Amino acid sequence: MINFFLYNWQVRDEWFQWCQQLSIEELLKCRTGGAGSILYTLFHIIDVEYSWIRGIQRKEDRIFSFEDYKTLEKIEMLSTKLRNELLEFLTSHKEFNDEAVTVAWDENEYTKNDILHHVIVHEIHHMGQLSVWAREIALHPVPVNYIGRDFKSYFKG
Amino acid sequence: MINFFLYNWQVRDEWFQWCQQLSIEELLKCRTGGAGSILYTLFHIIDVEYSWIRGIQRKEDRIFSFEDYKTLEKIEMLSTKLRNELLEFLTSHKEFNDEAVTVAWDENEYTKNDILHHVIVHEIHHMGQLSVWAREIALHPVPVNYIGRDFKSYFKG
Repeated sequence: MINFFLYNWQVRDEWFQWCQQLSIEELLKCRTGGAGSILYTLFHIIDVEYSWIRGIQRKEDRIFSFEDYKTLEKIEMLSTKLRNELLEFLTSHKEFNDEAVTVAWDENEYTKNDILHHVIVHEIHHMGQLSVWAREIALHPVPVNYIGRDFKSYFKG
Repeated sequence: MINFFLYNWQVRDEWFQWCQQLSIEELLKCRTGGAGSILYTLFHIIDVEYSWIRGIQRKEDRIFSFEDYKTLEKIEMLSTKLRNELLEFLTSHKEFNDEAVTVAWDENEYTKNDILHHVIVHEIHHMGQLSVWAREIALHPVPVNYIGRDFKSYFKG
């Protein structure tokens, strides 16, 4: 399961890199479908991932406001910071089970295993949307193949 | 791992259902980004999934031509047919390992485990693209949340 997260994070970093060619207006421009803008999509996947994985740990949700992160640099810093915390948790808990947890923002119970699946799928889905928006502004999207990647760098240092 | 496939297939079926409201012209219309048209995207994910999973089994690739499947009904039938074969294989081989395989259309070796990850990600990514195209024609896309789904129906009958 961890490899899906490493994949998502590597692709996310490549989108951060890709975004550097765009102006802040282009990054914040409201687009058709998806979460709205490119920058908000990146914020949203980070926020959703972090919230659910805190939920698995039965930790209280932390609320982040997009208003506080409306630049590429701020969102990338947030991503890196929260991810370090998640990586530590995910690599030290390799077995996830069907134990049910509840979270503050949803009235249903979900298993830890289902939540992990949900978070993984959520990010890949939104990255697919970014790829259409990229073509709409006549740019090549980030290549998202899973095979051929190397995730060793996450475990260095 | 199997649950990601069951998720993808359920979402795929919901897209088939969703597509019924569109004319064949709309389904075949070339769109910006992604694989080109809605119908071709559906054909493409089926074809890619089947080819790679035959590769894992060291079976020869079967070539399908989109020209032979240019209606929603034909593509849905192809999906159902190939999926039954894949379901049998995937549920009888629960442990995938780092054994390397080669396939006819790629010069590199990949592990069976990486190929499964690749196929799962590939479909979710393309479904994200369909969701943007749906909004572009002012329709609600298929909801793609992972949590809250029930996959038991795949194991009935």
